[in-house]
Amino acid sequence: MRLIAVDWGTSSLRAARVDDDGTVREERASQRGILTVPEGGFPAVLQDLCGDWLAAPGSLCLVSGMAGSRQGWQEAPYCPCPAGFTELARHLRWIAPGRVALVPGLSCEAGGVPDVMRGEEVQVFGALSLLQQRDGIVVLPGTHSKWVRVRDGAVQSFSTCMTGEFYALLRQHSILARTLPDEDGALDEPAFVRGVLHARSGAGLLHTAFSVRTLALFGRMESAAQPSYLSGLVIGEELRTQAVAGPGVSLVGSDALTRRYALALSTLDIATRSLGSAATWRGLWALAGTLEEP
Amino acid sequence: MRLIAVDWGTSSLRAARVDDDGTVREERASQRGILTVPEGGFPAVLQDLCGDWLAAPGSLCLVSGMAGSRQGWQEAPYCPCPAGFTELARHLRWIAPGRVALVPGLSCEAGGVPDVMRGEEVQVFGALSLLQQRDGIVVLPGTHSKWVRVRDGAVQSFSTCMTGEFYALLRQHSILARTLPDEDGALDEPAFVRGVLHARSGAGLLHTAFSVRTLALFGRMESAAQPSYLSGLVIGEELRTQAVAGPGVSLVGSDALTRRYALALSTLDIATRSLGSAATWRGLWALAGTLEEP
Repeated sequence: MRLIAVDWGTSSLRAARVDDDGTVREERASQRGILTVPEGGFPAVLQDLCGDWLAAPGSLCLVSGMAGSRQGWQEAPYCPCPAGFTELARHLRWIAPGRVALVPGLSCEAGGVPDVMRGEEVQVFGALSLLQQRDGIVVLPGTHSKWVRVRDGAVQSFSTCMTGEFYALLRQHSILARTLPDEDGALDEPAFVRGVLHARSGAGLLHTAFSVRTLALFGRMESAAQPSYLSGLVIGEELRTQAVAGPGVSLVGSDALTRRYALALSTLDIATRSLGSAATWRGLWALAGTLEEP
Repeated sequence: MRLIAVDWGTSSLRAARVDDDGTVREERASQRGILTVPEGGFPAVLQDLCGDWLAAPGSLCLVSGMAGSRQGWQEAPYCPCPAGFTELARHLRWIAPGRVALVPGLSCEAGGVPDVMRGEEVQVFGALSLLQQRDGIVVLPGTHSKWVRVRDGAVQSFSTCMTGEFYALLRQHSILARTLPDEDGALDEPAFVRGVLHARSGAGLLHTAFSVRTLALFGRMESAAQPSYLSGLVIGEELRTQAVAGPGVSLVGSDALTRRYALALSTLDIATRSLGSAATWRGLWALAGTLEEP
């Protein structure tokens, strides 16, 4: 088997050729996120990026991310939790049987409402594979952060927080934007931690966010420190509602973001390990491995 | 004394002529909120609206709202809590001694950060006067809702929630906007109450807001019901973090908004009384009354 691992998101397309032992041989990327692809145009875009890889005999191409959404190539309906590799494999949407498949997202139900992820499930399984774990909490910070609870190799449940999006909304469109600088600049760690700690009061973000304005009004926080403080308030709110004491969490995401979450979690005495994009290729490789088993 | 009560906000200017017994004789309004007034232009704009009233001998003009902010006519620095009429009167910013004054806003400190209001303090005192109360919780829903705790006729502390602003941000600029209808339409009470109850889970708005999207994805909530559900989630979050069991709260605001809050509070078995704009004129009248005392 030669695995062609593809991560096809809303605004980007990445692919990797992965050896049987999991080694990533080559990576390629393009700006052709699904929003740029016209209906029926997905095969051609994939061919453009890695047609040479696809032509190799015996290749298997697994595509994760928004390409499997209703707005993507074809819809690969969400696989309900609890879900491990077996359930994910059973819900693959085969485009070309045995050769190209879309990986489904996951869904779960809590408090009478559904929750969903698409693309992150592969990163979760990749992280578990890299860490050689079958249990734990995996956190994927981002525009829509995911807190994922895994037991015995299967995702039991998860929870989405619109943390990155709330930050952007407050940063760009709210009254708070009036006193914030044009650019975020480097992270101001003390201001960030102050935000995380203030969020812990439990008064809720609707209230705590207003302190960005009042601290500015009274000249008690410089403009340059305010983006970091606001980031601390928003991430701190996520932690307050999601984090539980325990054996620590695994963070999967960009360096800049996982470092910020690790810092925030350390104020709650929660240990972290951080993983980057390697988790995606590893997850697709591990999934491909289960398909070969008899 | 002839009181000319003026409520001069960011985007509107309202004035009333109030008799000694508190009866409002005449009201006038214009679009000349402080954002439309150039520096130094405030006296002329006020003269335009009610120069005839101001010319009457013995008249007293009290101006509340953003006209007393740094961006307004002159800055009337915030009066720190606890604050009753005595403190407010002491912090009046006299433009023309004995004739025209700006009412200061209030400030308080909680959890190491300041909170502020400007204009609402007059409504709070007006509500207490109308209800003949000296103690209680007064809630002023809006873009920035205020929860005000009053004891023995003085504001002890208060808390701001950016509820209306968060709703507008999510409604207009977030991913949720994609499945919401163009117009809010009439309140869908069951959808609103469902949102209030879901907020009670305590998972926090960062998480619960995402349910607007997932319920739409799974076809479990019609587009027309989503604005009411989102409103319930946001107001429910405010109530969850602010409301305390007790003798009920007084709501001051527009009919549409106080009705929505009364409905949300009723799901928590908290009784409410609602007051409209009369509270502003009553508050300025009651403040004027204390100035006359020897």
